[in-house]
Amino acid sequence: MRSSYAVGVDVGGTRIAVGLVERKGRVVKDAKRLTPKTGPFAVVDTIIDLVEEVSSGAHQSEIAGIGIGVPAQIDFLRQSVEFCTNLPLAGVDVRSLVMSRSKLDVTIDNDGHMAALGESRYGAAKGARDFLMITVGTGVGGGIFLNGEPYRGSRGLGGEIGHVVVQLDGDPCPCGGTGHLEAYVSRPAIAARGRQAAAQFSGSDILAAAGGTVDAVTAESVLLAARSGDEVAREILLECGDILGRALVGFVNIFNPKLIVVGGGIAEAADFMVERAAEVMQAEALAGRRDVSVVHAVLGNDAGILGAAALAFDEYDAHQGVH
Amino acid sequence: MRSSYAVGVDVGGTRIAVGLVERKGRVVKDAKRLTPKTGPFAVVDTIIDLVEEVSSGAHQSEIAGIGIGVPAQIDFLRQSVEFCTNLPLAGVDVRSLVMSRSKLDVTIDNDGHMAALGESRYGAAKGARDFLMITVGTGVGGGIFLNGEPYRGSRGLGGEIGHVVVQLDGDPCPCGGTGHLEAYVSRPAIAARGRQAAAQFSGSDILAAAGGTVDAVTAESVLLAARSGDEVAREILLECGDILGRALVGFVNIFNPKLIVVGGGIAEAADFMVERAAEVMQAEALAGRRDVSVVHAVLGNDAGILGAAALAFDEYDAHQGVH
Repeated sequence: MRSSYAVGVDVGGTRIAVGLVERKGRVVKDAKRLTPKTGPFAVVDTIIDLVEEVSSGAHQSEIAGIGIGVPAQIDFLRQSVEFCTNLPLAGVDVRSLVMSRSKLDVTIDNDGHMAALGESRYGAAKGARDFLMITVGTGVGGGIFLNGEPYRGSRGLGGEIGHVVVQLDGDPCPCGGTGHLEAYVSRPAIAARGRQAAAQFSGSDILAAAGGTVDAVTAESVLLAARSGDEVAREILLECGDILGRALVGFVNIFNPKLIVVGGGIAEAADFMVERAAEVMQAEALAGRRDVSVVHAVLGNDAGILGAAALAFDEYDAHQGVH
Repeated sequence: MRSSYAVGVDVGGTRIAVGLVERKGRVVKDAKRLTPKTGPFAVVDTIIDLVEEVSSGAHQSEIAGIGIGVPAQIDFLRQSVEFCTNLPLAGVDVRSLVMSRSKLDVTIDNDGHMAALGESRYGAAKGARDFLMITVGTGVGGGIFLNGEPYRGSRGLGGEIGHVVVQLDGDPCPCGGTGHLEAYVSRPAIAARGRQAAAQFSGSDILAAAGGTVDAVTAESVLLAARSGDEVAREILLECGDILGRALVGFVNIFNPKLIVVGGGIAEAADFMVERAAEVMQAEALAGRRDVSVVHAVLGNDAGILGAAALAFDEYDAHQGVH
């Protein structure tokens, strides 16, 4: 029997979102809660509560399984959480814990891979078997899609697009490296640039957007000021676009993709940043590779849920011999 | 019938080398000549002469075909030479010209892909289905191997590993971009650093290796001086190792490979440069990805011939339905 639903779980640093998803990608029921900060088991309990909540309407036998996207480095083959900087899940066997309580098959993967899988199955990359996805938000993540599935590398740890060196003598990156893309293009990097600018230009809209306090400036203050037409804020985001574009040059020269999908909260809020990145890439990529389309992700916050559900359907079908 | 031999052709900026190769990778007969500088047809004529020379001992029916590696951007699907900076072959239908004269099937590909295929079939990456190859010579090239074949991207133009940005405000690259890996780690970059050093330190072995004339300093002068123990020359190459290592950080974070093969004339002549690159990469790559082996290519100048022959065998077998 071909199960009609899968449960997709998107575990974020701020909130956990869960949806009951039909094969065609319709989210039938969803629920979210703030991510508890009281340890790994509270996180797992919240996942289980939310799974029960959304799946209560469906019969167990109708559900193909549960897919879970975690903001962590996942060893996909071993289904283990190897490293997780924003949540205390490293070494926690999330899969077994959720499986033993839910009695459903569970598969975990990196959240960037899940968003890419969501866009590939139901969104901006529908029908594309090879593409590159980049998400710009708190961090810079993404995934490489080859032959219709995320390219995971030898230990399932591939795809960390934010951690390529763009500046030899560069700024420190949260990962411990220096000069990585994520050190220049991410929520914290934009907030830091915004605080600098707010301190320097007392009349800037950035400062106003943060209620007049330099220390209160966040990436959102910069985005808000840019939308109101503030040139300093726009310039900060355009410089991010320049740097993102320079990183894209390397990706395009190595991968020669037809399609690049850009998603994540920052990219969604600043179209012009993504446009700038595409222009910079087109101008510098080696000849013959410039006919790559750079498009926005379309699934927004649902990408993670939909990708995780797609993973659960895929795993179910693989075990049933359906292809 | 399974053909016993293939002809591998390695077209270089300086010389063209051709070999008659057995399935097991033994070069039965080879021949080389300087690359003519008198236009595209002279290059093609030389290829054909050399092919006839090495294949004269074998019966036509024993030869699976001809593989040709060209230092150019090849559209593999269309079998066309798209861009070629060192030779006048762009737009020349090398495949058809050689095929019509030799009466053998011909397949062309990028020379970096061919060297990688050679190492994967007969050399340092034997048995590895996924690895990264980087060649450091006049340029920085290479190939990504996935599932046992070169990853070519949407138009066969993938794998240009030398053209990733490592410095935002960087040095000009021969490709027209700025701050690319190749602008820092390549024969011309090393020669430029050597000339600077020779002008600055009149007692340096680099100057002596170039016969006392600053303008005569080449990358080979630097390599020679480094081998004789000159600290300035060693430092130039170690800095190349640092930068190569920083680029490897990004590759490892994206690909999570088990194996990286480093080849090319510069890498062969400077073991310690490659060792430094491996150390730098191990120290900065994201946790969990550091168990990657960095090894030297072992086929040297034969890699191109052997890879091109392997391609010819593969194409022949694919058409015969042998896998």
